Amino acid sequence: MRLLTLLGPDLRSALESDPEGLREALAKFHIEDVAEILDDLPVEDAIALMQTLPAELAADVVEKLSADRQVAVLKAIEPAEAAEILTEMAPDDRVDVVQELPEEDAQELLVELEKAEPEAAEEVRELAGFGPETAGGLMTTEYVSLAPELKVWEGVEELRRIGSTQEAETLYQIYVCGYGNKLLGVVSLRDLIVNDPSQQLGDVMTENVVSVEPDDDQEHVAEVIARYDLNAVPVVDENEGMLGLVTVDDVVDVVIEEATEDAQKMGGIVPLEDSYFSTGLAEFVWKRGAWLVLLFLGQLLTATVMERHQHLLQSAVGLVLFIPLIIASGGNAGSQSSTLIIRAMAVGELEARDWLRVLGRELGIGLALGVALGAIGFARAYVAGNQVGAAALASAVGASVVAIVTLSTVVGSLLPLGIRRLGLDPAVSSTPFIASVVDVLGLLVYFALAQLILFHLL
Amino acid sequence: MRLLTLLGPDLRSALESDPEGLREALAKFHIEDVAEILDDLPVEDAIALMQTLPAELAADVVEKLSADRQVAVLKAIEPAEAAEILTEMAPDDRVDVVQELPEEDAQELLVELEKAEPEAAEEVRELAGFGPETAGGLMTTEYVSLAPELKVWEGVEELRRIGSTQEAETLYQIYVCGYGNKLLGVVSLRDLIVNDPSQQLGDVMTENVVSVEPDDDQEHVAEVIARYDLNAVPVVDENEGMLGLVTVDDVVDVVIEEATEDAQKMGGIVPLEDSYFSTGLAEFVWKRGAWLVLLFLGQLLTATVMERHQHLLQSAVGLVLFIPLIIASGGNAGSQSSTLIIRAMAVGELEARDWLRVLGRELGIGLALGVALGAIGFARAYVAGNQVGAAALASAVGASVVAIVTLSTVVGSLLPLGIRRLGLDPAVSSTPFIASVVDVLGLLVYFALAQLILFHLL
Repeated sequence: MRLLTLLGPDLRSALESDPEGLREALAKFHIEDVAEILDDLPVEDAIALMQTLPAELAADVVEKLSADRQVAVLKAIEPAEAAEILTEMAPDDRVDVVQELPEEDAQELLVELEKAEPEAAEEVRELAGFGPETAGGLMTTEYVSLAPELKVWEGVEELRRIGSTQEAETLYQIYVCGYGNKLLGVVSLRDLIVNDPSQQLGDVMTENVVSVEPDDDQEHVAEVIARYDLNAVPVVDENEGMLGLVTVDDVVDVVIEEATEDAQKMGGIVPLEDSYFSTGLAEFVWKRGAWLVLLFLGQLLTATVMERHQHLLQSAVGLVLFIPLIIASGGNAGSQSSTLIIRAMAVGELEARDWLRVLGRELGIGLALGVALGAIGFARAYVAGNQVGAAALASAVGASVVAIVTLSTVVGSLLPLGIRRLGLDPAVSSTPFIASVVDVLGLLVYFALAQLILFHLL
Repeated sequence: MRLLTLLGPDLRSALESDPEGLREALAKFHIEDVAEILDDLPVEDAIALMQTLPAELAADVVEKLSADRQVAVLKAIEPAEAAEILTEMAPDDRVDVVQELPEEDAQELLVELEKAEPEAAEEVRELAGFGPETAGGLMTTEYVSLAPELKVWEGVEELRRIGSTQEAETLYQIYVCGYGNKLLGVVSLRDLIVNDPSQQLGDVMTENVVSVEPDDDQEHVAEVIARYDLNAVPVVDENEGMLGLVTVDDVVDVVIEEATEDAQKMGGIVPLEDSYFSTGLAEFVWKRGAWLVLLFLGQLLTATVMERHQHLLQSAVGLVLFIPLIIASGGNAGSQSSTLIIRAMAVGELEARDWLRVLGRELGIGLALGVALGAIGFARAYVAGNQVGAAALASAVGASVVAIVTLSTVVGSLLPLGIRRLGLDPAVSSTPFIASVVDVLGLLVYFALAQLILFHLL
């Protein structure tokens, strides 16, 4: 990556003096590396370089560019030129690129594409109808489907014919489809090679094919592909009619993207659309500020709780010293629980209906952790307890830590389950959110226990 | 999943009355679903059911069982029987299973495997030498490699021969290797189909193959496969000699596993080995307690800071009310930054050397967010400011919020970068860790500003 960044300035001068030689040099790189160079170059240089590339190579490179750069390049060149690049792209990537463009430019491009390749334009409109984070939004319509009556040798011939015109990624599986494109089974390359060439595909195919529906969430598609170790999963409609194919390489990207989104939600941020450096400052302030202001307003409750207990704080000043310690221990314990539960739900290890089992475990764990921390808290408060009486203050602090850590552990685990039960995304019960809830609870518990221990028991 | 769980009790009775019929019924399920049933059954029933399965099917099922269940099954059956199941497994899965077993059982099993298939035992010993989270630990040694002098038609014949004995996943790419198994290039199925059968593989192959080294971290392997949209990546030694192959299905699992580990680290937990419910209570208490106790000890500093400023708190009691609010706002802002930066580093968007650019952005964002929250804080404190003077208290709170939010945003972003720079995993600068650091800083800033504003300026 560093090497490629260094190449930048040299590329720029080569672009002026020897575009032909540069084109040849670029052909030796992987497409993804060429795209990275183009992402890093100043936008005018990138466009100039793109225009020296033949349409097929340009299409491959455009697929790999960052979203910003795709838009910049396609808007800068002639619509007819852009349409030519589009015709060379895989259907799923073609839709993604068009969807990145502003509405007006997208329409203009579709008109040009209509002229160049009407079916491609039609396909873009169809695929654009599915949500971008669904199976339909991920799928490609380039797959190999054959009739069950065909012989094995005819299947091989068909692959040969298709292989000379299309990408290889769609060739690993042949989908056997009957009337109305109904998915009947799947034939792997291995089946074609191992079986007698005169057998029918319908006799050698594997029935009981794992498939997904177009509205299925992309996370579900990823789970299915991971669970069954598939290279691709077919997308079928309610009548088992085959619509398209989601390949594993797209799913790897989905898994990474979803993990990033979840991490951001759990950190209390509205998920970003782009990478860290491509996100504008205003967007950052908004996406972080929204949660931060909300949490701050919620946290104002802590000031109210403090106000209500001013008499207690004034009569036992030592209590004040441990407020940050006590509420932080609750926040930390609660964050741990919510993180564990949210992640376990994300990978399908547990469901909202497991709440009773979760409650049992977290209660035990919380109590054990609470006692350990409570003992340390007791010792520290005993040392500090000059004005109110060491034993009383230490007891109040120790008991509060036990209670708050236990309570926070339980709240941190049940809140995400409850949020999922409501049909919402549990990742919104972020670490800062749990910490805020638990801060207020922590103060209430601390003051109640302190009042009880200092003024009624001792 | 629910359906399969319900099947449990029926399966158990069928196991006694009609094992043959049950076996036939199971053959209609996907291997992964059979494994899930076996994971959910009581362990004795699962073992009894396993023993009714033929070795090849049993091997497929064992590969998919949870680690606990694999060990239970392999320990329960005769070593010779277990060895027979092992011979049917893919080399990478075989090693994983053997590594799950206690040392003594593993040795006993290897002795049996030695008798049944000496090369398999040798291979296990070799692969076991690589770290489990490296390319070497993930790779399989079952791949197709051919000499560059072979003709395209000979390649097809070779595939046909191999295809009838092995799994299909290794057939998608043929690796062209020269003297000493040096990797020269790769030939895809498409290349075989499209090219003239009489050409040599060396002439149709793609050179410049993306590869990884056996000691490369599994995260790096996943990045390479995701970046270049590969179905498999070859593992080569320092002389470009081919050692094995990592396939994309293993990488999907790695990506999910790494995301879970990172989430747990960021939530302040030592990563778990197993799923939420398979982890024992003692392990939980230890893996959460370790961090929790450490953080608690660090948080004791807050009590010390409070003690040192007791005079200030006593002379201006209103200040106390806003302590939880102020330190929480710092914790939340800091968590957001650290989450963004840690995740951006995990997906390769930024490096430790980008710290200056990060500093610039976070300073701007932190200041904007701080001013927004500071204004709310000012208003709230103005209302509460009875004893110390509304304007003075409100100014102290407002200014502190601005300072602390800005400072925390910067600290939360630079700390993970610094930790990466030291060669450590940035995900250990977890949300609770940042919150703890920022709590102490927050108190110091608040008290310093309050002192200045209340006693020197107003």
